[in-house]
Amino acid sequence: MKRIMLRVAYDGTNYCGWQVQPGVETIEGVLNRKLSELLGEVVEVIGASRTDSGVHALGNVAVFDTNARIPGDKMKYALNQRLPEDIRIQESMEVEADFHPRYCNSQKTYEYRILSREMELPTERLYAHYTYRKLDVEAMKRAAGYIVGEHDFKCFCSAGSQVKETVRRIYSLDVTKDGELIRIRITGSGFLYNMVRIIAGTLIQVGDGIKKPEELPAIIASLDRSMAGPTAPARGLRLVRIAYEGKDSDYLETF
Amino acid sequence: MKRIMLRVAYDGTNYCGWQVQPGVETIEGVLNRKLSELLGEVVEVIGASRTDSGVHALGNVAVFDTNARIPGDKMKYALNQRLPEDIRIQESMEVEADFHPRYCNSQKTYEYRILSREMELPTERLYAHYTYRKLDVEAMKRAAGYIVGEHDFKCFCSAGSQVKETVRRIYSLDVTKDGELIRIRITGSGFLYNMVRIIAGTLIQVGDGIKKPEELPAIIASLDRSMAGPTAPARGLRLVRIAYEGKDSDYLETF
Repeated sequence: MKRIMLRVAYDGTNYCGWQVQPGVETIEGVLNRKLSELLGEVVEVIGASRTDSGVHALGNVAVFDTNARIPGDKMKYALNQRLPEDIRIQESMEVEADFHPRYCNSQKTYEYRILSREMELPTERLYAHYTYRKLDVEAMKRAAGYIVGEHDFKCFCSAGSQVKETVRRIYSLDVTKDGELIRIRITGSGFLYNMVRIIAGTLIQVGDGIKKPEELPAIIASLDRSMAGPTAPARGLRLVRIAYEGKDSDYLETF
Repeated sequence: MKRIMLRVAYDGTNYCGWQVQPGVETIEGVLNRKLSELLGEVVEVIGASRTDSGVHALGNVAVFDTNARIPGDKMKYALNQRLPEDIRIQESMEVEADFHPRYCNSQKTYEYRILSREMELPTERLYAHYTYRKLDVEAMKRAAGYIVGEHDFKCFCSAGSQVKETVRRIYSLDVTKDGELIRIRITGSGFLYNMVRIIAGTLIQVGDGIKKPEELPAIIASLDRSMAGPTAPARGLRLVRIAYEGKDSDYLETF
């Protein structure tokens, strides 16, 4: 028996998110089914991040245990042959039997993309949130500066969440503009439910002049979801990378 | 009666190309139907470029005649409300009654996108041709230099085409690399059937070492389709812009 880790890229458009749910197609569901077919045994993956419906990933992480003889680093080729073209394994490798993608220390990087131009652009519609408003990117950058660091981020957590501990550490939060495309890239030790989309919605309000950058400390200190901006749409969000301590040379040890 | 010009952006993925065909959905077919509904009269657009199935556009051009009282520059808003989200009018304006998008002098710009990386990327699969091969972009640039100018481009014309006059002028042909994405951007007075995709297929062979840049003059001089590379897949192609003499400030008068 060995444990295999997969880095999984997907276009979330046609899936009801990561997590298996009865009666609908999910990324986890497809991986379980295709791995079970490939390996001739019942496989159930454990995922690192349960991305929502419509959210994309360049590198979500999943592990599973198998008795199959396919070497870990060859698993990606065998599996990709069976997967639909909107899911592609980027890397596969054997890991320690006790490696758990949610309980091991990691740093997750997400990107939220905003397209700001006069008219909507069909070829970007599934991968960026569109606005006809011109956003003040410099103001967004200043606001982002207040979010970096360790804070109680309860204000950026969806009201329905059951989680008790709402302190998280954000290592970096960069807002960049490339023509009509604005990217919000955020790396942290972990994220609350909908946290990145609420931060994006708040920064969009700052860019739009509805909130001032200097209001961010008070919004965070309020611990009140209703003080932050709206949850930005799922399609603008992509999970870029999950780096694990000891597993990734680029793991940023900044505790 | 007035003539309206539209600049049309679309994601070609779910359409059988531009041109109306019985029994299938096409861009032209959707525009005719939605314009007729909007204006309460039978509308048939005349398109500038009959893009193939799966090819995208940022700015294809169409014109139509109407008695409707909606001002030309407001037409885009009214029409976009009715269009599916994979088609969006970028600009609408009234033009002279004799303006014809195919017979008036124009310069068309296309972009062919190639994604070169170890594994396929689902979020780019519909908008770039994927190859796991590393391409020599400098060799592609050298090869591109031989194509610029006025030539008989019969070698880059699909064998089935009925067109007799195969001389065209290419104003610019730039190959650029941005990380894993290679862009071939080409501007010309007009293009033969599948010409951009055959040029892309030929440049990919050059990047892959199958052909040398210095072979391009002999390939062009042969007037023989079989000497050029294969027709690259439709999904990598997008029609970027059609500039008309007298209508666009950026019209490049280089005849």
